[in-house]
This record gives sequence, structure tokens and C-alpha cells, in this order.
Amino acid sequence: MRLAVIGVGLIGGSFALALKQASKVSHVVGVGRNRANLDLARERGIIDSIAADVDAAAGNADLVLVAAPVAQFPAIFAQLKDCKALITDAGSTKRDVVAAARAALGARIAQFVPGHPVAGAEQSGAGAAIASLFLDRRVVLTPLPENRPESVQRVEDAWKACGARITRLDPEEHDAVLAAVSHLPHLLAYGLVHDIAQRGNAEQLFAYAAGGFRDFTRIASSHPEMWRDICIANRDRLLAELERYGAKLSALAALLRAQDGAGLERLFAEARAARNRWLKSSS
Amino acid sequence: MRLAVIGVGLIGGSFALALKQASKVSHVVGVGRNRANLDLARERGIIDSIAADVDAAAGNADLVLVAAPVAQFPAIFAQLKDCKALITDAGSTKRDVVAAARAALGARIAQFVPGHPVAGAEQSGAGAAIASLFLDRRVVLTPLPENRPESVQRVEDAWKACGARITRLDPEEHDAVLAAVSHLPHLLAYGLVHDIAQRGNAEQLFAYAAGGFRDFTRIASSHPEMWRDICIANRDRLLAELERYGAKLSALAALLRAQDGAGLERLFAEARAARNRWLKSSS
Repeated sequence: MRLAVIGVGLIGGSFALALKQASKVSHVVGVGRNRANLDLARERGIIDSIAADVDAAAGNADLVLVAAPVAQFPAIFAQLKDCKALITDAGSTKRDVVAAARAALGARIAQFVPGHPVAGAEQSGAGAAIASLFLDRRVVLTPLPENRPESVQRVEDAWKACGARITRLDPEEHDAVLAAVSHLPHLLAYGLVHDIAQRGNAEQLFAYAAGGFRDFTRIASSHPEMWRDICIANRDRLLAELERYGAKLSALAALLRAQDGAGLERLFAEARAARNRWLKSSS
Repeated sequence: MRLAVIGVGLIGGSFALALKQASKVSHVVGVGRNRANLDLARERGIIDSIAADVDAAAGNADLVLVAAPVAQFPAIFAQLKDCKALITDAGSTKRDVVAAARAALGARIAQFVPGHPVAGAEQSGAGAAIASLFLDRRVVLTPLPENRPESVQRVEDAWKACGARITRLDPEEHDAVLAAVSHLPHLLAYGLVHDIAQRGNAEQLFAYAAGGFRDFTRIASSHPEMWRDICIANRDRLLAELERYGAKLSALAALLRAQDGAGLERLFAEARAARNRWLKSSS
């Protein structure tokens, strides 16, 4: 299998490395905006060659992975409109990606199987790519009615070769679920760090921040452009989550104001129990 | 030195273990509400003996560490009112602890040097205690005007023997700083997990939660009673932080509504840069 990776960053690079390790690809071509990053990807053996543009990269490929920030998808899909290969993606939002694919690919839409590996790290770029990134991680496919079952199966097989566990959702459901458990926490972490950084005594505040703060804000070191695109693409769902979370914070403030220790302890204990159940079930 | 530990949990137990490892204590007596936890502490060599009550524990001690949830401090200090030993504490709030000490100890207040090791873990109890917990961690002392310099020095030396870095703040400042970088993040993490756990599709949502969510919510597995007490004790500061954070979330919502990608990206990039600077300076 010949693979084309559009955007050889943490996700695209790790996909290529994992498929190489599994001996599932004979050649990987990469394309991207940052030449230094592509050179690094070639040095690291992530890709075998560098294409000048998306069109050229996809021309000889059997499978194309689009792994760029989602706002670039309309332009990338436009360059894939004559592509004969099977196309999939790694975008963290699916409704906008599917709409962009439909608009650009037209009758070729059956060739596009949308996907989202729910894995990542706060590091980015080809330098951060590792073959094990998707091991035991979840990859969500959101197949389209037009997709042939064999096409979906081929994409599924590729991710399975990376060690991932595959589930399927429809794009609407995907975006709603991810808004709650991924997009909202990212926004909350960015917001907290930004607020503290802007204060006059920021240096003092950071000096007393410890392990809890470090882990809580790890995702605030994530790729700003990627998260800008996700937030904008999924803004309706994210705004609904923000509103819901604001109501939760108001409820917490009311407990504090009423000095309702029992109510706070119950809420904390229920949260801890739910989290610990989740950890247990997901391990 | 003979040490009495009031509350042999993660913090009190780790303090005892660290001082034993540094050969700074000849005997550690423990007291607490949970007999099974005290038995475990003795089995693990954290404490050498178990006292029936605070009074008995402190009677023969040179140094007393109060490491219980802060709402218990008034009752504990009442039992320490005739204590001859130097007393310190590990409470995460300082204004309420100092007030409780003043009310109970009266003229003996000079014997109490307030402290707060800014270290921890989401696990709790004697089973979680480790000698290295305070290694390179910050311990804040908030000395009182009545404290003799030698007393403050003795407490400082004990924490230094645990490997900690010591800084001093006044209690007001301590509570304001910790509200922002510790108490607020805990409340935010508890709130998010609780909100998700209460939804009809909680199971589905948790199924798609990944590493970012796990780290963001790690502190929501913290000890509910301990955090109840901290939140209630520091509620004025915490409410101010919640209000401030609510304004930040409103600003983020406004950027989303306006589809202001550039504004979002700038905020994310500033947050990432600030966090990365902090990580660099604190490593």
C-alpha cells in the first residue's frame, strides 16, 4: 500500500510510523506547509518522499490521510477532487469535515471515509510522532451512507494495524460527545492559564502552582491553530457545553456561599467515584 | 526528636517517613479517627506507636504536625492547649488555621508555626504515603509575629530534611495565591466530572474521554472531605476566583460566537507560551 499523508504532524506522522512498523505500507509520501517539518519527517523515516502539493502526493497513493488543522480541509479536498485513492482523515470534528468533503468531492464522496483518532499529546509536529501513539486508543469512524463497506473496512484495518480500537458514530453524535469530553476541557485549561498569565502577580501565582495545576493545564500546551479550528468548527456544541458548565459553576458558587459543606462533599465524592469507575473500566 | 502526627494520611505519613529516612526522628506517635489506617501506618513503619487521643500523642513530643482536614483544626487545637511542644501544620488554608490556633492556644500561640506543603496526590491515607513526596516541592510557612525565629527555623529545618524548598508568605497572601492555582482548579475538575457523570449518556461520554480528560480531571479523584474543608475555609477567595474565571469563560464564548479565530488562536498561543515558560522555570 502506498500512503499519502497530508500534514505530517503528531497524528499523521504517527499513523505513517505505525503502518510502517506493521509492514502495511511500501511507500509514504508527505505534503505540508512547513518544509523544515517535512525534512525532519524524512530524516526520521516517517515519510519516504516529499510531494510539492496535495495533488501530486495523492496521485500515486492507495490511501490518503488528511491530518491537517480542520480549517484547511476545504482547500485540501478541493485538490483531491480528481483523486482515485481512498481518502480518510484525522480531524477532531466531523460535521464540518464531512460538509467540506461533500462540497469538494461531489460524486466522489463515496471515496472519503471520515475518521478521528481520539489520541494525541500536547506536543506537535513530526518530531513528536511515535509508532505507538494509537496503541489501545480509540479511533472513531463516522462512515457516510455513500461509503462502500469495503472502503470503511480498509480504513478500519489500517487503524487496527496501528493498534487502535475502532468504534463508529454518526458525525452529529461525534461532535456532541467530543465537545463535552475533549473540546470543553481544552478551552477550560487554556482559559485558566491565560487568566493567570495576564495578572500583575502572574509570576508569584505560577511559582506556587504544583502538580495538580500542571496536569490540569497539560492540554493548554496543545497546538493553538489546531484548537482554534476545532473550536470554530464545533462552536455550536462547544457554546452549549460552556453554558452548561457555567451553570455547574454557579451551582458550586451557591454551595460555597451557603457554606453547604455537606453538599460540596457529596458532589466531590460523586465526582471522585465516577472518575474512579471510569479509570477502572477504561484500563 | 520525638514527633507526633495528628492525621496519618498522605501528608502526615509522608512527613514522618521522610524524617525517618533522614534520621531526624527517634520516635513517631500517630493519632487519627480511623483505626485501620493507623494500624496500616504502624505496619508500614510510618509510626512507632498509636495514641488514644491528641493530648496523649502530644504529651511526649518535641514536634507536633497537625495534618487533618482543616475543619477539624479547632477541636485538635483545643486538645493542644496545654501542649509544651512546637506545633506546625500542613493545612491547605492558612487564615482559618491561624484563627483556630489563636482561639484555642491563647498565650501559647508562639508555639505554633503555620505551614503548608504544596505537594500532594489524588490518593489519600497512610497507604499512599511515601518518603519522597516533598522532594523538591515547595513548603510555604506563614510565620506569626509571636513566633520566635528559632521556632520557625526548627520547622523549616524539618521540612528541609524532607527535601522541600521553603518559602514564606503571610496567611492572607497564601490563601489568595492558592485559591487561584490550586483550589479553583480542583473545583473546576470536580465540577466537570460531576456534570458529565449526571447526564443520561454519561457512559457514552466517558467511553470517548481520553488522555487529556484523564489528566485534566486527575485532581477530581482527590479526598472529598479534605477539599470540602478547604473550599469552605477559603470560600471568599474561591468565590472571587470563580467569578473571575466565569468572566474568562464569557470572553471565550464571545470569541466563539463571533467566530473570531484569530482572537482564539492568540489566546491559546499566549496560554501555551506562558505554561511552557512556567514548566521551564520550574524544572
